[in-house]
Amino acid sequence: MKTLHVDLGERSYPIYIGRGLLSQDLIRNHIKNKQVLIVTNDTIAPLYLEKTQAMLTGFDHQTVILPDGEQFKNLETLNLIFDALLTHKMDRSVTLVALGGGVIGDMTGFAAASYQRGVNFIQIPTTLLSQVDSSVGGKTGVNHALGKNMIGAFHQPQCVLADTETLNTLEDKQLAAGIAEVIKYGLLGDKPFFEWLESNIEKLTARDADALAYAIERSCQDKAEIVAADEKEHGKRALLNLGHTFGHAIETASGYGQWLHGEAVAVGMLMAADLSFRSGFLSKSDVDKIVSLTERAKLPTAPPKEMTHEQFIDLMLRDKKALNGIIRLVLLQSIGQAIISDNYDRTALDQTLESFLSVKD
Amino acid sequence: MKTLHVDLGERSYPIYIGRGLLSQDLIRNHIKNKQVLIVTNDTIAPLYLEKTQAMLTGFDHQTVILPDGEQFKNLETLNLIFDALLTHKMDRSVTLVALGGGVIGDMTGFAAASYQRGVNFIQIPTTLLSQVDSSVGGKTGVNHALGKNMIGAFHQPQCVLADTETLNTLEDKQLAAGIAEVIKYGLLGDKPFFEWLESNIEKLTARDADALAYAIERSCQDKAEIVAADEKEHGKRALLNLGHTFGHAIETASGYGQWLHGEAVAVGMLMAADLSFRSGFLSKSDVDKIVSLTERAKLPTAPPKEMTHEQFIDLMLRDKKALNGIIRLVLLQSIGQAIISDNYDRTALDQTLESFLSVKD
Repeated sequence: MKTLHVDLGERSYPIYIGRGLLSQDLIRNHIKNKQVLIVTNDTIAPLYLEKTQAMLTGFDHQTVILPDGEQFKNLETLNLIFDALLTHKMDRSVTLVALGGGVIGDMTGFAAASYQRGVNFIQIPTTLLSQVDSSVGGKTGVNHALGKNMIGAFHQPQCVLADTETLNTLEDKQLAAGIAEVIKYGLLGDKPFFEWLESNIEKLTARDADALAYAIERSCQDKAEIVAADEKEHGKRALLNLGHTFGHAIETASGYGQWLHGEAVAVGMLMAADLSFRSGFLSKSDVDKIVSLTERAKLPTAPPKEMTHEQFIDLMLRDKKALNGIIRLVLLQSIGQAIISDNYDRTALDQTLESFLSVKD
Repeated sequence: MKTLHVDLGERSYPIYIGRGLLSQDLIRNHIKNKQVLIVTNDTIAPLYLEKTQAMLTGFDHQTVILPDGEQFKNLETLNLIFDALLTHKMDRSVTLVALGGGVIGDMTGFAAASYQRGVNFIQIPTTLLSQVDSSVGGKTGVNHALGKNMIGAFHQPQCVLADTETLNTLEDKQLAAGIAEVIKYGLLGDKPFFEWLESNIEKLTARDADALAYAIERSCQDKAEIVAADEKEHGKRALLNLGHTFGHAIETASGYGQWLHGEAVAVGMLMAADLSFRSGFLSKSDVDKIVSLTERAKLPTAPPKEMTHEQFIDLMLRDKKALNGIIRLVLLQSIGQAIISDNYDRTALDQTLESFLSVKD
């Protein structure tokens, strides 16, 4: 087992990464009182709920099972968590346990941030995407029909428990989506990691346990450093949004749940790389390397064919980084060096959109 | 005009109190960018929306008008604010302006806390209750069918603007409800203020402008001191909940919107005083003084006759102060001295409930 630390003063917490952690006692020390509410979904419950409950023997634990999918990440489903908390008379000392992927983690975290104006929670991410990204850093929230993650809070967990064995039950599509976020860390600030990925990407898609464990550790380490430096995203943390402005537009346009978040981010990173090249920031050979790695990871490389230029612009203007009607984007100066910029060439953005929208895959 | 300060480090803010402040420029300096969303309701809009919009000339301001009433203080109505923010493409630099009573202030504040994980807001309270209590201190949130204010956040405003002229359009019932919270400050920690109220209560019910202005200032000052000492309610701030555990039970049981919050708190304070007496904390003569002042303020003195003993206990167990199945209450040792206690006599609590429930007014 590997333990990493997210260093946030009195809000610091450990990330435990390893095989079979769901059979250990690790989370018990992070529960401050007796009451626990496990929040999971109908895909994960049959697989890991029993194990999780066994870890909590002796606590007063209850469970709420939500429907699975990004299309349920909204205020209405969130309210099912509040229903459960109140029906079971859970008080301010309750600890929520998020057992599932990014959707479960984000919703459970926001429920914890808001229930009685703030209670504790623990993340048990069961997908690669949530293990390397969404479970770490305290961003929580739900979607609105008009924009992704528009409603939420910063709320840090007590600990993150990433059991790599849970990845064995993941669909290939879900695995690839997680790899997209792994590639992101290499691209935005860790060139040696990008190069490691170039040498090892097939091991990841083949679920080689050691390769996966290394990719998770390295990703969490990269993220933990960025979050510790800029918890509330006043600066550097925005770089973690590489590919996300394009990606969120894809997710919102196609209806939540149609595209996996990681798939949309993969295409978004390619669009960001293309725009970076057209704006004169990034070399053509770097763009080619990024495209090649994305293809080898079995990720999509073009947005849905129904999307239009206008739709992209309209949705990107709703991005949380947009200010005064200007779309701010995370762009690449080279592999391993990202910047946030509103200083790109607007014509180049139009060309990027045209170019990707003309690919009818 | 009087300016008070809530001292919370980098989250500090001023409270402006005075006549005709809605015709001045005060709030303009507290708006950080161009975008503003005014949130109000269908009772207040015809009275003060135009004046508020006039104050905001030159800003890119939009308005959303919600239905009036505590029964609409829920996630569904909250979503109307998010709808407006996203439809108008408001970004992270937006300032929300809450124009109305406590319900509008609480919902707007929570929308501001959650929109894009946190944007600025300004309070323009237009009821006595919101001017003396809910607009100050940063508690925001909505109700759940199973409990009041169960979903929310701590989120401080940029400033509070209390124009005492808005009280002229207030219904008598609403005025009395506000006076209940004013009495609360005297009871919980300011005996000289309680004595001032004993001498001046009829001036308040008759809307004497100077008496109202003094009561608002003094209440805000008392509250600002408590909030500065304990922003997140780890200790002393809980004393502001005097009468609220009983009161919330009344509000939840009778259906939100049937009883005004201040009315329920008035009865709750009498029940807390009664229990304090039965537990040997408070003298009979102090109880009599409190009952007398409440009656002179034209406030109710008994809970709804439909309520049962079991219902009270059940709802009070859901109170945010309850822990491990024990109801914690704010009780009085004397007028001007409140304590938080789970050390009262349980038989005495039963007697208090029996005694108040047998009064069929």
